[in-house]
Parts: sequence; structure tokens; C-alpha cells
Amino acid sequence: MEKITSRSNDKIKFAARLREEVRERRESGLFIIEGVRLCCDAARSSVEIDTLFVTADAMMRYEKSIGLLERAAKQSYEITTDVASRISDTKQDQGVFCICKMLDKISDIDKIDTMGKYVALENISDPSNLGAAARTAEALGMSGIIVASGCDIYNPKAQRASMGSLLRLPVFFTAELPLTLGQLREKGMLTLASVPDSGARPVTEMNFSGGAVCVIGNEGAGITEVTASVCDIEVTIPMKGRTESLNASAAAAILMWEMMK
Amino acid sequence: MEKITSRSNDKIKFAARLREEVRERRESGLFIIEGVRLCCDAARSSVEIDTLFVTADAMMRYEKSIGLLERAAKQSYEITTDVASRISDTKQDQGVFCICKMLDKISDIDKIDTMGKYVALENISDPSNLGAAARTAEALGMSGIIVASGCDIYNPKAQRASMGSLLRLPVFFTAELPLTLGQLREKGMLTLASVPDSGARPVTEMNFSGGAVCVIGNEGAGITEVTASVCDIEVTIPMKGRTESLNASAAAAILMWEMMK
Repeated sequence: MEKITSRSNDKIKFAARLREEVRERRESGLFIIEGVRLCCDAARSSVEIDTLFVTADAMMRYEKSIGLLERAAKQSYEITTDVASRISDTKQDQGVFCICKMLDKISDIDKIDTMGKYVALENISDPSNLGAAARTAEALGMSGIIVASGCDIYNPKAQRASMGSLLRLPVFFTAELPLTLGQLREKGMLTLASVPDSGARPVTEMNFSGGAVCVIGNEGAGITEVTASVCDIEVTIPMKGRTESLNASAAAAILMWEMMK
Repeated sequence: MEKITSRSNDKIKFAARLREEVRERRESGLFIIEGVRLCCDAARSSVEIDTLFVTADAMMRYEKSIGLLERAAKQSYEITTDVASRISDTKQDQGVFCICKMLDKISDIDKIDTMGKYVALENISDPSNLGAAARTAEALGMSGIIVASGCDIYNPKAQRASMGSLLRLPVFFTAELPLTLGQLREKGMLTLASVPDSGARPVTEMNFSGGAVCVIGNEGAGITEVTASVCDIEVTIPMKGRTESLNASAAAAILMWEMMK
């Protein structure tokens, strides 16, 4: 395996840009993930692995997994721990990184199962919340997620928090969420806007027997007005404590739980 | 304000040890938190702030908050961004750090409200999960949390994820969870062991009208056998998806939600 020892090696600089810049990811169609478990999840799913970077220490520690990754990757490089810290998104990395090809984006609304259950994430700004919501969606058996602007699903933090769910779950993209919701409503799906407003309908009172989409908004600003206006109904999580402080991914977990149970 | 420019300044080395080492925290009775919002949360609660470290950039950016923190802190130091990165737990810090005095530990089981609702966290290993569970507990209006071994509530990641909830919520400590649960049972509280076992009682079928404690176990290993054996009942979150992949803090959110609604 060829060895890279310089932090300013072109491949390393490119990997660092993939970690930091949405634009670089979009233009190249590639993204970077790290950590042995997530990289193996990618290798086992349909994701194409372009490049593996691995430290000598990680090769010893995760011998079997690294073997799997080497076979899956088009090219593999050994890197030093110093180089690893240049491309890592964490303070203590495992020394295992994969550059992967983006999945085909699903923007065809006809592929949404009108009897299924979806969350639509509008302008989520913290990639960890996006990833955590995807992970919960998969765990609870949701049909998929719809992502409308906000942070990028290929952000390394989102990928890490999703533990591979973003690679396995059907993810739909829309640049026009109100329009998409309008189309789904016309197809008979129930569309809900979740709001932290005690005047809205408690989610516990809803009937989720048919297909439904629940919109979850930005951590600070909530759902946009135009999106809320096209939804059938505003729902809320009735709470006894400090309402304003429920984290977006915890709120998402409770909403999806109510939709699925 | 005195300025510290060296990463090997004694106060900085001490701050870095507080971030990294449980032992240093326990011996000194101090812990370190970072970020302007969390530090202000601490200043507004009953937490004693020993030392403030702040960069020149943060002083300009968060002028009002830094004023509040300076008044609350016994001593304040200006630090360089290089020094800030030495004591930060994040890759991109805000340049605001407080060394705080630990709160009085509550280990007196008699202070638990036998009509209240609690989660007991047994051997949680990821500090972010511990912090997130505390945040959700406060948001949903739980009476408090019981922490039995596992990671330290003063871990900087736990503090950051809890957004101040770990400083405000009653937190009980026990080194002998089975014993504590036995005592709470005798006082008439319902004690539950949450397990990822589809044979256990669905949490949706439980009646939470009285006082209750729900134990949440380690992310990988679950609840210890001895703890499970003293609980009244094993409960589970019935799921349709990939059961094994529900994150500990999402599972905690759903369990607490069912207890509180």
C-alpha cells in the first residue's frame, strides 16, 4: 500500500476539502466518511468506495474490517496519524477514512409510497440532528425521509450520527417543499407541520392509519410559514417541562414514534 | 484582564487535564465547560464559576455574555486562539471556557419523590447520550435522573449535549443501583428495566399513574443482569424497523415520553 506522509499531499488536501466544503462534494460527486463501523456499513451497502485512507495503527487494530475495506476500495493509501488528523472531523479519530461516491439522488416524487410514513426535514442546520433523525427513522421502520435544504446529508457529522442509515434509507430531495407537500396531499397523504405551540393539535390525538408526512423545521426558526400553510394540520408534542429545550432529534424521535406505533 | 499566551501555562495545563481526566475532576472538585450559551447557563444557575478563559475575538463577538461571565467568575484570563484550542473539546471552539465547581452530589435516596418519574442511566458510555437524555428529561418534565456508574456527568461532551440540563435537573448518584432500586420499590415506586427484547412488555401497555423509575442500560451491553432482576418488569419499545439501531438517547426520549404523557 502506498504511503502518504505529508499533510499537503494533493489527495489529502482534496479529502480535507470534501470534509469541509459542500461545493467540493457537489462538484466531485464524492464525500468522505470516517470510523471503522461507518466505513464498513458503506462497504456492505451499495455505496461505491473510491479511496481508503488508513493508519498503520488502524490496520493492526481493525485487521478484518480493513481487509473488507481494501477489497471494496478502488485505491488504498496508508497515512500517518498526523495526516489522519488533517482529514478527520473528530478530535480523536480511528485512522480509517473512505472517500465514497454519492448515491443517486431521488427527486422523483412518484417514488414516494403514498401509504408510507415519512418525515420531511426542512432547513435542519445541525448535521448531527439530520443524521440522528435518519437513524431513528430507519430504526422505527419509517418509509424514508425527505430533505428540503438545510445541511447536506453528505456532511461527515451527519453521516457519523446516522450510523449508515443515510446510506440505506430512501432519501428524497426537494428544493420546493411546499410544492412537494401539495402534490403528496393531492395523492391522499396526510401532511403535518410540527410546531412547538401548545395551541396546535396534540400528536397523540392524530390517526396515522394512512400515509403521512410530518415536517420538522429548523432548530431555531421552526418550519417556514409557506410550508406550514400548505400542511393539513399543525401538530405539537404536549409537554410538562421546559418545552423550548427539547432537542430537534429527540422531538423527531417522539413524532416518528407516534406515527409508527 | 491578564493574558495567557502559552499552551504550557500551568492554568492551561490544568484546564486541559480537567477536560480529559475524570480523576483530575474528582480530586479538584472542578470541571470545565465551553461555549457561550452553556457558560451563561451555568452563570445563571447555582453553579460557582472559578475561572473564565476567553479569547479577544469572543470578547468582541459575545460582549454582553462575556460581561455576565466576568462578573460571575472569581478570576478571568484572556487567552489566544492557540491556547483555546489546547483546552477545547471541539474542533472549532467559540473561545469561551469556564472552570466550575461541581454541584453537591445527591446520593440521599430519601430525596427522591416517590410519586415522581425518573430515568436511571446505568453504565452509559457515550457522554453525549448522557447529556442528551438529561436534556430530554428536563424538557419533558421528569423529576430527575439517577446516574449509576458509566461516564461522568462533568465530562465536557455530556455538559455540552445537556445544554445546561445537567446543571439544573436533580441528579442522583448511586454506586449500587440494584440496592437503590430495591429501596425505591419498597417505597412503592414502579421499577422498569428497558430491554431491546420483543418478548418484553410493550412500554405502550404500561400504566404510569404513580411514581416510576425506568432503567436505561449501556449502549452495547444493555442493563446488567442483577439490575434487571430487581426491577418489577422488563419493558421494550415495540419497533417495526431495525431494532438494534435505535440510538440510546432516542430510545430514552421515547421511554420518557411514554412515562410522561
